[in-house]
Amino acid sequence: MNKPENAADTRQALLAMGRSARQAAAALALASTAAKNEALVHMAEAIRADAALIARENEADLAAATDKALKSSFIDRLTLTPARIEAMAQGLDAIAGLPDPVGDVTDRWTRPNGLKIARVRVPIGVIGIIYESRPNVTADAGALAMKSGNAAILRGGSDGFRTSAAIVAALQRGLAAAGLPKEAIQMVPTMERDAVGLLLSGLEGTIDLIVPRGGKSLVARVQQEARVPVFSHLEGICHVYVHRAANLAMAQSIVLNAKMRRTGVCGAAETILVDQACAATHLKPLIAALSDAGCEIWGCDRTQSADARVKPAAEADWGTEYLDAIVSMKVVDGLDEAMAHIARYGSQHTDAIVTDDTAAAGRFLTEVDSAITLHNASTQFADGGEFGFGAEIGIATGRLHARGPVGLEQLTTFKYQISGTGQIRP
Amino acid sequence: MNKPENAADTRQALLAMGRSARQAAAALALASTAAKNEALVHMAEAIRADAALIARENEADLAAATDKALKSSFIDRLTLTPARIEAMAQGLDAIAGLPDPVGDVTDRWTRPNGLKIARVRVPIGVIGIIYESRPNVTADAGALAMKSGNAAILRGGSDGFRTSAAIVAALQRGLAAAGLPKEAIQMVPTMERDAVGLLLSGLEGTIDLIVPRGGKSLVARVQQEARVPVFSHLEGICHVYVHRAANLAMAQSIVLNAKMRRTGVCGAAETILVDQACAATHLKPLIAALSDAGCEIWGCDRTQSADARVKPAAEADWGTEYLDAIVSMKVVDGLDEAMAHIARYGSQHTDAIVTDDTAAAGRFLTEVDSAITLHNASTQFADGGEFGFGAEIGIATGRLHARGPVGLEQLTTFKYQISGTGQIRP
Repeated sequence: MNKPENAADTRQALLAMGRSARQAAAALALASTAAKNEALVHMAEAIRADAALIARENEADLAAATDKALKSSFIDRLTLTPARIEAMAQGLDAIAGLPDPVGDVTDRWTRPNGLKIARVRVPIGVIGIIYESRPNVTADAGALAMKSGNAAILRGGSDGFRTSAAIVAALQRGLAAAGLPKEAIQMVPTMERDAVGLLLSGLEGTIDLIVPRGGKSLVARVQQEARVPVFSHLEGICHVYVHRAANLAMAQSIVLNAKMRRTGVCGAAETILVDQACAATHLKPLIAALSDAGCEIWGCDRTQSADARVKPAAEADWGTEYLDAIVSMKVVDGLDEAMAHIARYGSQHTDAIVTDDTAAAGRFLTEVDSAITLHNASTQFADGGEFGFGAEIGIATGRLHARGPVGLEQLTTFKYQISGTGQIRP
Repeated sequence: MNKPENAADTRQALLAMGRSARQAAAALALASTAAKNEALVHMAEAIRADAALIARENEADLAAATDKALKSSFIDRLTLTPARIEAMAQGLDAIAGLPDPVGDVTDRWTRPNGLKIARVRVPIGVIGIIYESRPNVTADAGALAMKSGNAAILRGGSDGFRTSAAIVAALQRGLAAAGLPKEAIQMVPTMERDAVGLLLSGLEGTIDLIVPRGGKSLVARVQQEARVPVFSHLEGICHVYVHRAANLAMAQSIVLNAKMRRTGVCGAAETILVDQACAATHLKPLIAALSDAGCEIWGCDRTQSADARVKPAAEADWGTEYLDAIVSMKVVDGLDEAMAHIARYGSQHTDAIVTDDTAAAGRFLTEVDSAITLHNASTQFADGGEFGFGAEIGIATGRLHARGPVGLEQLTTFKYQISGTGQIRP
């Protein structure tokens, strides 16, 4: 991998990468499940064999990153321990064990004229994955794309460049060992910022889809600039609505879990809505559960008057993704106001209702226009593993093709295969 | 409907239209099938009641169009006869009779923790439809969008402006009669060219999808400029490959139908590939069938030497969508060369193989990377009606979400509805 030295070089290098990825994708689309699984197992072995080399490159990345005085959470995500390298290898083995969606016939019917039409899953093609300095994404995203028959072009954060390069080298050895083209998983060979813009342009039609994985500013840039389809979520402003017919113990448990299990994930709740009809009994215990767990609460007037620990929410709070031990809380007049609030301030990601009233739950599940709506369960179930998808490349809030967790199936599209006996159209 | 008078007015008018369409879409997403069908029947009645008015507006459009000395095929498409107005009304009645995809549960499973996950069809939202001066598209596209729970913003060609306005007025009366918001089907109230650019920008997030219906230059502009997803096909360079194991009579029948049944549709064949192994027996009869039917043939050297009527094909012929009684024809060495030719020159639309060899057919159906692949059937089956979709808003060759005919189902997306009993995530 030679680093290009200027913008024209970068452009040429990326276009060549796009063309070779397109060729690899054509081969991979027809590769057998056995060959893809064999490659994944070889990739895992190569990661294990190269563990010392990968750790060394990671140390070099970390030394440079520490020099720049980056945040400790950032350093933590960049750091690969032996356990994390082994987990990466195990992740590849696990993907080998997942069912292969390619070739699945999802629908099949026969027309009155005898034509047999089958709707068959096929790979999307070439997927560009743009992410921050998390080396594990390199293996994970590359492997998910490959297992679903797609070629991957990876562009990780600059601070993990050497680590990612070492990981990609191992992945490519695994591909070659299974007789698959190593160009099926490639990494942009430069950290020039121009490279992202080129990927987002689609590299002259060689990229079919972009998946950004990272913070809001990265995703916002990708959504703004991309000239090809994007699977992404800008933010997860997730709500838990405690309806008047909510069981208090269940509401406490779900609210606490939805907000505090992990505060940094996109499925974490950011706003709790409490029905005024049960506020007298439910509001104080809900506030207490959150406060006692160390959560800061910004609330409406009615919430503030229930507990002195609640601070006044500003208008901006209703549209804020805290990703921290902070929550906004509002008393609403009923189901309609709750749904109107979610429509106005939500991000169409994941929203939950807690209630024993089946009719209210039915309306909420149907009428709230989010990728995932839940009844009597925590918003933190917004996750590919929890859906049974085995692994996910991210969560999508766009309206087309993939919504919610993006697993192997969501990385495929379909074609129609039609079999006849000489039919012509009258 | 007041016509805006300048660019700033146009922008304001379109943004207001987008916002009202978004509101209408929210209502329509929850409308019952009965209400939508009632609206369609009222819309058909309103078209019939307004037939004289619509005809008068059409005459005014035609008078202006004839003044500009447009092509006769263009004038024909713009012209509404009483029979065509009745056909438009019947089309609305037919859409009322189609099954409603909204609310269909397409998948349903239970997780080990008891969570019940359902994948449910929901409308896409607001669909912008940009088309040429074919007034019937106004009723057809507006009705298909509405039946699938979407709001439509229509932008037809300027030469049919008065006709379309009269049709939209009738459609809106039908919506109102069923208690649905008339803003569910709206028409851009100006022919300013800026309006198309504004639609393609997505009108500040109020448009979810653009469907262009028209010639290559319109579709190319939409694909180039759109900042929102587009369902479209730029062109249909469809192939029929006559394999060495093709039955001659079937090959003749399919080739003739694929090319000549209607030459102006996107599923018409543009290139015939003939296997060299059967060229001695099949080539002359295939050329004769086409030539005798009035088709001009541009062929490779081997095709030319088979029949004096074949003219020499240039390189550009292999990538040309003639949409006319013209075909390009090439003798290929076998299945691999045929598939390589299609990969290089095709448009991923619709391609067919004629053969009695099941293995060859299987490879062709799987390996040719087009939205529709056929075995022993005419490419002219690339049509929503022929798929059993009842009606289509167009054909898509993009890789995501909708491929092939775009009917009611393809105008929906999905959400996950999850029902629990208090599950929290460990």
